[in-house]
Amino acid sequence: MSARTRSEERRAEIVRAALEVIAERGYRGASLAAVAERVGLTQQGLLHHFPTKEALLVAVLEERDQWDAVPDTQWRVDLLTSLVDYNAMRPGIIQTFSALLGESVTEGHPAREYFTERYTGVRRTMARALRAQYGDRLPNGLTPERTAPLLVAVMDGLQYQWLLDPESVDMAAAFRDFLRLLGEPVH
Amino acid sequence: MSARTRSEERRAEIVRAALEVIAERGYRGASLAAVAERVGLTQQGLLHHFPTKEALLVAVLEERDQWDAVPDTQWRVDLLTSLVDYNAMRPGIIQTFSALLGESVTEGHPAREYFTERYTGVRRTMARALRAQYGDRLPNGLTPERTAPLLVAVMDGLQYQWLLDPESVDMAAAFRDFLRLLGEPVH
Repeated sequence: MSARTRSEERRAEIVRAALEVIAERGYRGASLAAVAERVGLTQQGLLHHFPTKEALLVAVLEERDQWDAVPDTQWRVDLLTSLVDYNAMRPGIIQTFSALLGESVTEGHPAREYFTERYTGVRRTMARALRAQYGDRLPNGLTPERTAPLLVAVMDGLQYQWLLDPESVDMAAAFRDFLRLLGEPVH
Repeated sequence: MSARTRSEERRAEIVRAALEVIAERGYRGASLAAVAERVGLTQQGLLHHFPTKEALLVAVLEERDQWDAVPDTQWRVDLLTSLVDYNAMRPGIIQTFSALLGESVTEGHPAREYFTERYTGVRRTMARALRAQYGDRLPNGLTPERTAPLLVAVMDGLQYQWLLDPESVDMAAAFRDFLRLLGEPVH
């Protein structure tokens, strides 16, 4: 293996370890020290690959985006209900996403670019999927481009309410209610 | 003045100063040192009133809730469009709210209780207002109790997209689109 490939392998191994630590101990428990220990590196060795906790967490979220990705041509709005159901079963990564999203809106935060670009891409993908399914207008009269930011907003906003109070907020049922507002036939 | 009243006055003065610093310098610029300087206290003196930055920020958000409050009997859904328009003019406090909400979903965060209780209260107030306006069902068929979490989620979620990319996301227009989905006549 070339040095470059070895370094990429190592990075991938660290990201997987971080995901495990997040799932077991949550966002706060996912310290660089805990991740370093799991992959048998010193903290100094880990910092060589990821200079900050934020950089490592962004890498984890980028990796999740890869795993969650559906080819643009295959994308359908009703797949989102499956995604929200699935998210309700993995609070660790959703907590990490939500905490980092919160921090990212502050000045000069290292995750700001990731989230800004992610949202631009997600809004575009959703608008395309809505257009393929409904044409220029949804049953409720909105255009796909005006519906996309609302879809994203509801998913993110419900995650906060659910993470804070999982007994009171049924994230999956609430998201289905929203899709019904859009005119989707939902089961 | 009694000692208790003097202490309360001092706290109120600190909270107002924190709001000013947030408006001028944003969430990250609002250090305890900057707030202490503005009210002529040492940082040690400030810590006597607020032991952490998070405790001070929660006090700022609680104070904002007081100022934004509308009596339950006066509450109407279309007032939310005014609130969202207003929020779009005060990014500093919205950034503080959003950043702290993000952090609050992590284990043992000092703002967790504030946000959990706030959302329980806001969902209840919104459900009551929707019920007073529409009865048991909104024009779209949802109950008030199932609509309330969606209203909150859209407001919060749009704030993140807008804070990250204010040029691309028109928070006020997007929120009006959502109210139209609910069947509200919106201008």
